[in-house]
Amino acid sequence: MTRQHKFEQRVYGDIKLFAGTGAPDLADKIARYIGLELSAHDVIEFPNENLFVKLQGSARGQDVYVVQSTASPVHRNLMELLITIQTLRLDSAARITAVVPYLCYGRSDKKDQPRVPITARLVADMIEAAGADRYMTLDPHAGQVQGFFSIPGDVLTASSLLTDHVNAEYRPQLHDPVVVAVDLGFAKKGRNYAADLNTTIAFIEKRRTGNTPNAEALTLIGDVNDRDVIIVDDEVDTGGSIAQAVQLVKKNGAREVYLCFIHAILSSDAASRLAALPVRQIITTDTVKISAEKMQILEGKITVLSVSKLLGEVIIRAHEGRSVGEMFNE
Amino acid sequence: MTRQHKFEQRVYGDIKLFAGTGAPDLADKIARYIGLELSAHDVIEFPNENLFVKLQGSARGQDVYVVQSTASPVHRNLMELLITIQTLRLDSAARITAVVPYLCYGRSDKKDQPRVPITARLVADMIEAAGADRYMTLDPHAGQVQGFFSIPGDVLTASSLLTDHVNAEYRPQLHDPVVVAVDLGFAKKGRNYAADLNTTIAFIEKRRTGNTPNAEALTLIGDVNDRDVIIVDDEVDTGGSIAQAVQLVKKNGAREVYLCFIHAILSSDAASRLAALPVRQIITTDTVKISAEKMQILEGKITVLSVSKLLGEVIIRAHEGRSVGEMFNE
Amino acid sequence: MTRQHKFEQRVYGDIKLFAGTGAPDLADKIARYIGLELSAHDVIEFPNENLFVKLQGSARGQDVYVVQSTASPVHRNLMELLITIQTLRLDSAARITAVVPYLCYGRSDKKDQPRVPITARLVADMIEAAGADRYMTLDPHAGQVQGFFSIPGDVLTASSLLTDHVNAEYRPQLHDPVVVAVDLGFAKKGRNYAADLNTTIAFIEKRRTGNTPNAEALTLIGDVNDRDVIIVDDEVDTGGSIAQAVQLVKKNGAREVYLCFIHAILSSDAASRLAALPVRQIITTDTVKISAEKMQILEGKITVLSVSKLLGEVIIRAHEGRSVGEMFNE
Amino acid sequence: MTRQHKFEQRVYGDIKLFAGTGAPDLADKIARYIGLELSAHDVIEFPNENLFVKLQGSARGQDVYVVQSTASPVHRNLMELLITIQTLRLDSAARITAVVPYLCYGRSDKKDQPRVPITARLVADMIEAAGADRYMTLDPHAGQVQGFFSIPGDVLTASSLLTDHVNAEYRPQLHDPVVVAVDLGFAKKGRNYAADLNTTIAFIEKRRTGNTPNAEALTLIGDVNDRDVIIVDDEVDTGGSIAQAVQLVKKNGAREVYLCFIHAILSSDAASRLAALPVRQIITTDTVKISAEKMQILEGKITVLSVSKLLGEVIIRAHEGRSVGEMFNE
Amino acid sequence: MTRQHKFEQRVYGDIKLFAGTGAPDLADKIARYIGLELSAHDVIEFPNENLFVKLQGSARGQDVYVVQSTASPVHRNLMELLITIQTLRLDSAARITAVVPYLCYGRSDKKDQPRVPITARLVADMIEAAGADRYMTLDPHAGQVQGFFSIPGDVLTASSLLTDHVNAEYRPQLHDPVVVAVDLGFAKKGRNYAADLNTTIAFIEKRRTGNTPNAEALTLIGDVNDRDVIIVDDEVDTGGSIAQAVQLVKKNGAREVYLCFIHAILSSDAASRLAALPVRQIITTDTVKISAEKMQILEGKITVLSVSKLLGEVIIRAHEGRSVGEMFNE
Amino acid sequence: MTRQHKFEQRVYGDIKLFAGTGAPDLADKIARYIGLELSAHDVIEFPNENLFVKLQGSARGQDVYVVQSTASPVHRNLMELLITIQTLRLDSAARITAVVPYLCYGRSDKKDQPRVPITARLVADMIEAAGADRYMTLDPHAGQVQGFFSIPGDVLTASSLLTDHVNAEYRPQLHDPVVVAVDLGFAKKGRNYAADLNTTIAFIEKRRTGNTPNAEALTLIGDVNDRDVIIVDDEVDTGGSIAQAVQLVKKNGAREVYLCFIHAILSSDAASRLAALPVRQIITTDTVKISAEKMQILEGKITVLSVSKLLGEVIIRAHEGRSVGEMFNE
Repeated sequence: MTRQHKFEQRVYGDIKLFAGTGAPDLADKIARYIGLELSAHDVIEFPNENLFVKLQGSARGQDVYVVQSTASPVHRNLMELLITIQTLRLDSAARITAVVPYLCYGRSDKKDQPRVPITARLVADMIEAAGADRYMTLDPHAGQVQGFFSIPGDVLTASSLLTDHVNAEYRPQLHDPVVVAVDLGFAKKGRNYAADLNTTIAFIEKRRTGNTPNAEALTLIGDVNDRDVIIVDDEVDTGGSIAQAVQLVKKNGAREVYLCFIHAILSSDAASRLAALPVRQIITTDTVKISAEKMQILEGKITVLSVSKLLGEVIIRAHEGRSVGEMFNE
Repeated sequence: MTRQHKFEQRVYGDIKLFAGTGAPDLADKIARYIGLELSAHDVIEFPNENLFVKLQGSARGQDVYVVQSTASPVHRNLMELLITIQTLRLDSAARITAVVPYLCYGRSDKKDQPRVPITARLVADMIEAAGADRYMTLDPHAGQVQGFFSIPGDVLTASSLLTDHVNAEYRPQLHDPVVVAVDLGFAKKGRNYAADLNTTIAFIEKRRTGNTPNAEALTLIGDVNDRDVIIVDDEVDTGGSIAQAVQLVKKNGAREVYLCFIHAILSSDAASRLAALPVRQIITTDTVKISAEKMQILEGKITVLSVSKLLGEVIIRAHEGRSVGEMFNE
Repeated sequence: MTRQHKFEQRVYGDIKLFAGTGAPDLADKIARYIGLELSAHDVIEFPNENLFVKLQGSARGQDVYVVQSTASPVHRNLMELLITIQTLRLDSAARITAVVPYLCYGRSDKKDQPRVPITARLVADMIEAAGADRYMTLDPHAGQVQGFFSIPGDVLTASSLLTDHVNAEYRPQLHDPVVVAVDLGFAKKGRNYAADLNTTIAFIEKRRTGNTPNAEALTLIGDVNDRDVIIVDDEVDTGGSIAQAVQLVKKNGAREVYLCFIHAILSSDAASRLAALPVRQIITTDTVKISAEKMQILEGKITVLSVSKLLGEVIIRAHEGRSVGEMFNE
Repeated sequence: MTRQHKFEQRVYGDIKLFAGTGAPDLADKIARYIGLELSAHDVIEFPNENLFVKLQGSARGQDVYVVQSTASPVHRNLMELLITIQTLRLDSAARITAVVPYLCYGRSDKKDQPRVPITARLVADMIEAAGADRYMTLDPHAGQVQGFFSIPGDVLTASSLLTDHVNAEYRPQLHDPVVVAVDLGFAKKGRNYAADLNTTIAFIEKRRTGNTPNAEALTLIGDVNDRDVIIVDDEVDTGGSIAQAVQLVKKNGAREVYLCFIHAILSSDAASRLAALPVRQIITTDTVKISAEKMQILEGKITVLSVSKLLGEVIIRAHEGRSVGEMFNE
Repeated sequence: MTRQHKFEQRVYGDIKLFAGTGAPDLADKIARYIGLELSAHDVIEFPNENLFVKLQGSARGQDVYVVQSTASPVHRNLMELLITIQTLRLDSAARITAVVPYLCYGRSDKKDQPRVPITARLVADMIEAAGADRYMTLDPHAGQVQGFFSIPGDVLTASSLLTDHVNAEYRPQLHDPVVVAVDLGFAKKGRNYAADLNTTIAFIEKRRTGNTPNAEALTLIGDVNDRDVIIVDDEVDTGGSIAQAVQLVKKNGAREVYLCFIHAILSSDAASRLAALPVRQIITTDTVKISAEKMQILEGKITVLSVSKLLGEVIIRAHEGRSVGEMFNE
Repeated sequence: MTRQHKFEQRVYGDIKLFAGTGAPDLADKIARYIGLELSAHDVIEFPNENLFVKLQGSARGQDVYVVQSTASPVHRNLMELLITIQTLRLDSAARITAVVPYLCYGRSDKKDQPRVPITARLVADMIEAAGADRYMTLDPHAGQVQGFFSIPGDVLTASSLLTDHVNAEYRPQLHDPVVVAVDLGFAKKGRNYAADLNTTIAFIEKRRTGNTPNAEALTLIGDVNDRDVIIVDDEVDTGGSIAQAVQLVKKNGAREVYLCFIHAILSSDAASRLAALPVRQIITTDTVKISAEKMQILEGKITVLSVSKLLGEVIIRAHEGRSVGEMFNE
């Protein structure tokens, strides 16, 4: 998959790619796609947990991309990203782009009750305060997060990576397939998956049924009986909602079940929980590094598609000042 | 409904309420609820369309609320709001709150295609640049718009005003009612209406079917057959989507149809279009002033509930430094 | 007049020129002068009046100039300018210059009474908040408006365009000509016109004579008797002051009268009013588009000189990083 | 003139008045008018010229006014103002108002040639960067300087102090008086003086006559023959223009000549030059401290009116949150 | 030690004190000193490590103090502080003061080699971006950190707490005591300890002796022979430098050794290492919570003095708008 | 020493070097080192002390360096720097670097007592407000001043210039040399001098001994008996501390004494005072211009090393986007 990119034009200094410790494999693949060596820098953690960053070479006047995912350890990874950005800014880099395949705190995106934070905005503010000129991310929980930044960004989706894969590998043998959105907040995006897979869509509605925390009723709206089901979501954390969804569609007569989601957070015992579900295949991406241990638990049941080509291509185009929309025929 | 509020404590100077020309009736009702006179100011439009604002009395050191809706004429109303805010700031007001019952450009809240604006963020930036310290608004298209502001705000919903009214006036005689969300993007909020009305919910899915602009198919997901239907949305513009929705639920066997929405934009011939629909009642609010002419067209078919009590109460609490969440038992 | 400019050097990406809907003809002429195609973008107005902008091609890393005049419809044109700038910024344009031949609200430039706005500063703040890196404008009401921006700008004057024309076409046959400034606030700039035309200068003084709005006395200071008069101003709105001025100089013995002004706002029935005046010729520019209807009313009495060459040349020099002052031997 | 002000209400902490070293007498008079002791602070100049400020008491949570004029030594006085403001901000003062009777660099207010600064904007930015929340000043060269600040301010004029004095002391015996504006840029303000004195107005026009620096011709526009003349300007520096003006009006038949101006900069040998002029009386204010030596040179020919009452009254009203416009029946 | 403070005056709303999870005991003691209940709020950590804050009551218009130490877990504690500040700001608190007894990253305060960060500045920027109006901290590594903030702050020292204790408990029996500064960067502050204890001072100099990381030579400058030694530093992390210092002074003939430092980070096996040292007593403070386990290891050898009274008194004075300097006779 | 630099690559427009009036000779040497002509601009001081700057050629799109030292006249020089930066920014320079060999107010870097300023931060804010994109300076009093700027900078040290000179010229004949730091705040940097000279180090401790200002005791810590002494400091102002230091080391048995310091402020009668000291040689740099008169007083006793090569090399590398750290093998 490696290619040696011939840069068509150079708008901003030379391109430099730095890999944060939160996404080393993905950064490596992006570098290979572009045909670049990763720029070297040291990230040291002192006994008092304070991080220290030192670039091994100068970034003066260069067009720099820092690839860092902000999944677990969330706060350390976020801080490492910020420190690296500041270091580059103080070293007089010409332009700094924070490439954050998975951006933490995406679900804290509005005050839906009084006296709570909008942490996604805080995170955007922090990235700007550190000195980023631009950012890139994939499939944020809400598209509106773009409006939380005052710097420009490339907010991409890996959904067609998932649906292209399903279409290529499974579509012919699927029986009257239907897409199911796990959450009503994902209804509109679920519709896009259904359109890409040329299927109908159904929804799961959650509703509180009492005052205790877990008193909630799940309802399936739409028809899944005797049909193959593709359950879609943007991010899977503990896997609890997904497990409920699988159970519900099965109870409603579903045949084979497939899971598609972008960000494989897989916290707590999510891997084991997913492994135990009666699903045919789990299709996800590498925006978050899945540990070898989890991969082993899910062996044979999980397909991890890489977003490296997508990010690499966007980085090339951003560096050269060419259209990114063009990649998607837009 | 008027009450003479005894202010419990005064945290910021005296309270002053200014009414923009975009919401005179609502501002008047708010003032009566609080028990205040509106503060006088002149808004002059010169022959070259330039606006000029002059306060008739000083706002130095006061706690000022500017009530201005930004429906048609949209840009003139928005500019009047901004100029009024700047005038107050330059007059050394202690704190300025922009009270915008309907905030324009709410649907331009993300880049869902390349090379387009996020105008809702721009509007937020403009309100801040003019000098507002806080803002209040009702039912923005997306709750995330709160994260577009860096100043604090009170983002309220009038949905319970609508559902309380339906529950009080129609609920007993409704036959197996179901809420229908006109758009998948409104699915989650539609669920809240359904929960308040203690009904199930169904959705209308729109999908492009070809390359021509209007080639789109509508699908109803969920069951409306032989049921009374409450169609819900946040804002009605030309009424096109609503008309399609009514037609679709009728085709699927709906009995009586009710429409509930917050912001009655009613542009083009929306009033006539709504008047012609086979619906029992249209329930909406006064966040946008509905012209006398439109009211006449819709006479007998429309109920306009006032948000003045809600806004008035929040203004009192903001001025006194008391909890707003408390109003909603939160 | 078209020329195919050979760019001497490229300091900032490629040059891109966008034409707002407020100045299409002028933008077209500028583009022809530079030898560029205008960049394509859509500006859509929805039924609810909200504007939507979509660039047809990418502006990443480019040096972009947005030409938009902010005469009537003032607020819509201003908002279109701001939205276009934000769209370009979010698309990662390298540098954005707002080219605003006529900048609205120029006369609201100070608080000459308490509790009024300084809207010209607000407009500057809005242009900066939208994301412009630079601006260009012509003959603002007060030169100090340059200090309202914190971004750099090229503030140009088209006065020599007017005086060169008068010198070439009329000067030889003018009889003992004198320049008359319509307003004392224009005294210093009027002096520059007089110097360029090598004439003396006279002034009209307005003074309030009572408490009613129109109770004002006009006095002519200086001598116009038996002389050809060139009345000068920066902008003509309803034409009321100009009409009074013509009447006054005629009463004081003036022979032929010429009018020279930069911005032809011509609101209300200004065109008819000007057409009815006993003036030999009206000389103005195309910073504001004069409608075909108004042009017909003024046919034979008006000469409209184009600022396109001036703006085009400045854009070329700004793009190449060359001196603009040099154009004026400064 | 002292009064013991009873504060009507307290909007912002307690009032504190600090006197910079550039305006000690004026600050003292202001304090006496308000009925306050000046707050004590040390201003030390080290041998290396660096200034050091130390407040003798805390300003936490107080409403602070720093009175500092920025005439000679200009840069030292400006820096002292900025350091004092920062010291107060770091000491957590609640609100800081820079009271600058004479604000330096007011004539550098626009780029009237390429490649020059707008230093008045820079000064405004510096005052804001230091941490002032508000400012007050008197008779800036251009009213537009208000738009250079983004903080609110009270920009006052002492012109009625001058004209009230002329009306009271000299008006009855003046013979057919006329106001003469020394510079066309002062034409509009000159008109205000003429209106207050109920006289007509005349102007002096300066025009370059060649390429050498001093080749300029002066023309008097309007009639002064056999009339008493009041020459008006905002600021007198070396007195060169004033001397030329006196000569010109005398040559044109003027009888008695009076000089009125706000800011008595009187640099170089201005005092001697003014003392030598054939003028009846020079009327000015104490916005700038006139040295004892200069006062002696001008003894009998100069009347210095104090702006202390004006500033004191505005400070009281700003502190109490009352209208300032009211003072001027506006 | 508890007292029920009678607030003398109320400058900013009511006082509210929130305790972060990083300093619960200290916050509790501060609250008891002031005579306040801590304000309740929930801090929840989701399985994906994202934190969520919810205030249990409104902070509108109040004067809020958030007490949070940023020792281990450093990044989680820092993020909790920032989220809490943003939550308070969005809830329209009148004034927010971040009270951070120990501020992380204090040693990353300058670029002493190329291509490294200044993380202390980044942390200051983050606290400001979150919305703090003021901050308080104790004994930062460098006093200059005050200049990293643009908001005002109270930067205090607990050194006299330590020296008062030594003077009271040990001074009489100390034999010819000498203070030893562990690091030359602490020389000036060490001098202050020596002055408070009325002793002379000596220093330890570290110098690199080769290219390997640990090749460094320690030199003692000054005399410790046959004297009781008080080793002083601002912060003890792993205890490595302290251990070397003890060894060195012992080798140079020291008698009893005492350790005094402010921030007891005690990472890795610092507690055991300190416990094993031949020192008479370790005197430190509670700016960082020392775990029960570590306290047990150090039992009998450690004295922990509380900074709660100091912080509580400063909070009271900040709230009332009274001098803090007064507390120290300044 | 002149060289004609062949620029390896051009990252930002062309390089332009402007010389402020505070450092003409140094700027000239830097220009010669780089092989550039200084760019011409006028700096005029009007009789009212206001400065006026006019660039003689355009700086549009260029990479500009303004060399200006801010020693006496301190405030005038600082203001000239700020005005020049603003002029360049308004002329649309692409990047502006303030090159300030000696930055004033460096010792006002923290609040070490209540109610005092942090003027070094204010100066940094002013430079940023004027529009600098980057800065360079040499040997600030505290390295932390880097954190006062939010723009990137190159903060360099000329200490190795001094120590290389001592090593080359004097080291072989020095008798058991020792470095003495005049102030404990300079202890750590003094250690670096000692390491470069391969000597041991001693310190002078100052301690207050009573309430009168000058009641302070000096103690020498470390051994100087029968040794050659190199006294080091960053800046010498009146020379008072240095004189005390020389006296003290002599009293303690020192042989020859040498003085090394970076910034030769030499205010008051410092030159005469230094000339009278029993020192072998004074070694300093040209970051501050030493007047011809002072040079004559110190003739034969002073060696002034030029920092022009160091600054010139850093400017070249900054312009080309190459590593500066590399120069120091870092």
